[in-house]
Amino acid sequence: MPAMPSASCSFTFRIRLPNRPGMFAKLATVIGQAGGNLDDVTIVSENRKEMVRSVTVGARDIAHEHAVMRAIRGLTEMTVLEVADRTFAAHEGGKIEIAGRRPLVNPDQLAIAYTPGVARICLAIADDPLRTHRLTIKHNTVAVVTDGTAVLGLGDIGPEAALPVMEGKALLFRDFGGVNAFPLCLATKDPDEIVAIVKAVAPGFGGINLEDISAPRCFEIEERLRRELDIPVFHDDQHGTAVVILAALTNALKLVGKTAAQLKVVVCGVGAAGVACSRILLAAGVKNVIGCDRAGALYKGRTENMNAVKEWYAAHTNPEGLRGKVSDVVAGADVFVGVSAPGMLTAEDIQRMAPRPIVFALANPTPEIPPEEAEPYAAVIATGRSDYPNQINNVLAFPGIFRGALDCRARTINEAMELAAARAIAGLVSDAELRADEIIPSAFDPRVCPAVAAAVQAAAIATGVARLGGGEVPPFDELKW
Amino acid sequence: MPAMPSASCSFTFRIRLPNRPGMFAKLATVIGQAGGNLDDVTIVSENRKEMVRSVTVGARDIAHEHAVMRAIRGLTEMTVLEVADRTFAAHEGGKIEIAGRRPLVNPDQLAIAYTPGVARICLAIADDPLRTHRLTIKHNTVAVVTDGTAVLGLGDIGPEAALPVMEGKALLFRDFGGVNAFPLCLATKDPDEIVAIVKAVAPGFGGINLEDISAPRCFEIEERLRRELDIPVFHDDQHGTAVVILAALTNALKLVGKTAAQLKVVVCGVGAAGVACSRILLAAGVKNVIGCDRAGALYKGRTENMNAVKEWYAAHTNPEGLRGKVSDVVAGADVFVGVSAPGMLTAEDIQRMAPRPIVFALANPTPEIPPEEAEPYAAVIATGRSDYPNQINNVLAFPGIFRGALDCRARTINEAMELAAARAIAGLVSDAELRADEIIPSAFDPRVCPAVAAAVQAAAIATGVARLGGGEVPPFDELKW
Repeated sequence: MPAMPSASCSFTFRIRLPNRPGMFAKLATVIGQAGGNLDDVTIVSENRKEMVRSVTVGARDIAHEHAVMRAIRGLTEMTVLEVADRTFAAHEGGKIEIAGRRPLVNPDQLAIAYTPGVARICLAIADDPLRTHRLTIKHNTVAVVTDGTAVLGLGDIGPEAALPVMEGKALLFRDFGGVNAFPLCLATKDPDEIVAIVKAVAPGFGGINLEDISAPRCFEIEERLRRELDIPVFHDDQHGTAVVILAALTNALKLVGKTAAQLKVVVCGVGAAGVACSRILLAAGVKNVIGCDRAGALYKGRTENMNAVKEWYAAHTNPEGLRGKVSDVVAGADVFVGVSAPGMLTAEDIQRMAPRPIVFALANPTPEIPPEEAEPYAAVIATGRSDYPNQINNVLAFPGIFRGALDCRARTINEAMELAAARAIAGLVSDAELRADEIIPSAFDPRVCPAVAAAVQAAAIATGVARLGGGEVPPFDELKW
Repeated sequence: MPAMPSASCSFTFRIRLPNRPGMFAKLATVIGQAGGNLDDVTIVSENRKEMVRSVTVGARDIAHEHAVMRAIRGLTEMTVLEVADRTFAAHEGGKIEIAGRRPLVNPDQLAIAYTPGVARICLAIADDPLRTHRLTIKHNTVAVVTDGTAVLGLGDIGPEAALPVMEGKALLFRDFGGVNAFPLCLATKDPDEIVAIVKAVAPGFGGINLEDISAPRCFEIEERLRRELDIPVFHDDQHGTAVVILAALTNALKLVGKTAAQLKVVVCGVGAAGVACSRILLAAGVKNVIGCDRAGALYKGRTENMNAVKEWYAAHTNPEGLRGKVSDVVAGADVFVGVSAPGMLTAEDIQRMAPRPIVFALANPTPEIPPEEAEPYAAVIATGRSDYPNQINNVLAFPGIFRGALDCRARTINEAMELAAARAIAGLVSDAELRADEIIPSAFDPRVCPAVAAAVQAAAIATGVARLGGGEVPPFDELKW
């Protein structure tokens, strides 16, 4: 699928042009002929003879940006003053910063926030470490931890190159969940070392968000950290994705009139997202899940290309013991969930699925099947892209999940909390609003985070993993009068 | 020395009292009789019969806060509505937070800051990791790393209890230096582990500020990290303190008309601060430094209570091989620098020092000798306290040192940069302003950070450790047009 012009690859330039009718049309024509998408246009300055405009144009890729720009420079009556790629400009100097929460402009404030006053806070915490949650940033701070081995669809690009994604994640945590998140990009791929590092830094954090760590290492790392830490550990590529998939599927099932228990679901890709998605589907009552990796369907007794997690997977899924490629096992399936790679599903495959098939083609940036090709045959389609309907976007889940977990000082994020999050997301689309191209709320729907947080918190309290709401944390009144 | 009432131990209460003349005087009298320091008073609300005031009172300690409050509650005409300790209130929820640097309110901004746009930034960095400095927070972000083993004067109180200090440090980095600093409080005391952890997290940071790690482990940890990392590693308890001591001493020497080369300096305490202070004094031209620990003077051949750092120390100081206690070796000394504990120096000791002796009694919160006792005999006195003149406050040094090092992307912070910082701080006190009680600028003097940063940057460039200013970092114009 050829990339389409988008904001993510756009550029802004200032251009001086004669101030007379038709000049801008000339510019717009050249941009259009070169395949550029005209975006915002503003007047920077003008006089009787000339004007300067700032123009933003979306392109397909950096080469296309240059091609459009060359065409513009060919307009001899106009002078390009300055060009900047919007994405690079938006990353200049980084995307987050540290800010003080209270002013520090006089000696008294310094004596309170730092020495000697701070010593009293230190002693209060030394006396009872649970006070850390109240008297420090811990209560609202999450570490975004990666080793850079599975960054977006880019693979093992290392900790430095992973940092922009982790900063972006921190930004989403802040803007969507009100959570402080700080990126830790680790220069090690050794699971033992990663576990040791995260355990060592844990005192200062209220939660750990693992990110873009390759499978199957991510399973072991998360499992060990969940066992050994008393704060939530959440691998977003697994659980965040799984929660949003379940939310979308819940609403898609309403549209096609099917229930979880009767479904046959093929999950294509059994990496972090595929395994977690399969697990949450099982927890939500789906009985027949068939996972496929490059070697085809996973079944009990398969020996090719296995590991500990795939052994577990084979033992708990595919009750009929189906074998074969994706195109074999997808026959008669009600749902296809792709978390794999482009080209894994064809229009012919969809035609062999059960009636009213649901296709979630979530590979990013290029889905398993182009939505345009699936559209004639699928009842509901979702992708991971923002430029198609029904984007399966983790930002619907993780900010609210951590908001809820932190607010009740949960010790972990368990399956009940994840199921509650999925139900909360699905529940924001009313039956009246529900349509095949509107099965989940928008990432910018302001109701999402509060709804997810409330549901997660209630589930945490109900399952006994919340420190607040269960009365475990003593009040601090003895310190504060 | 009994603690004096201060802002760091103060409380604010709201009180309802009859609205008639003399009532507030009654309240103020009771507060004064109980030994409380009346601070801000504001009227919250009033009517013809009553008024509500908010009153802040400084106390000596928490027990004194309670005693003053009991006395106030004894005033039967008045009703106390609410009381809060100011220091605890100022720590509620922590002192720092993460903020986004640019708005994120629509899908285009999301596509630029996160997927799919961010992938272009990742690839640019994967292509050349030096771009991390420009396209991420790395260029302006410092890790404040501790293991909680030597927090303030409180000792080994652990990583959780150390967190308020590290948050305070981060706040100072932000407010005084414009540097993003993030606390990492480690649940390990093993130097190998600490070195491994800091190395692993280093990709996301432009510098490492080690803090409150006990000696002698701090020396080994810093030395190994300086050797193995290509970003500045700075143990503030050592070098920050040393820089400010040298700055203060530089100006004190002008006042007493002595030069570095002719001095005899006794350094009491050879922990982190004492060793670094001695080193910078030697680098600044002092020939005769004598260090003392609990066993007395360090000299070549001493066997009691030694370690690798003390061996180095004994080999490079005390050229006359003096032995004995502090009170012995301080005889005839020009300068006493105490970075040890209360009671280590007496008025009699000062009387046996050389004429116009300089006494830096920096133990915190209680100096080696109360300034009042030293005052009749010493020509210049400095302490670590904000409530006496000449506070040796690290905040004069570390924000500007890191600001300068980060701005030129220095690979390290070397001695030349530290000496330059000390000169810059000293230079802010003009000869006209210089007085025995004004040898260093105030922590809130806005000239300090820029002056230190400029001097440090120049020294970094001159000594070849700067990446910028030396042309090593290629321009990004090929990415940004």
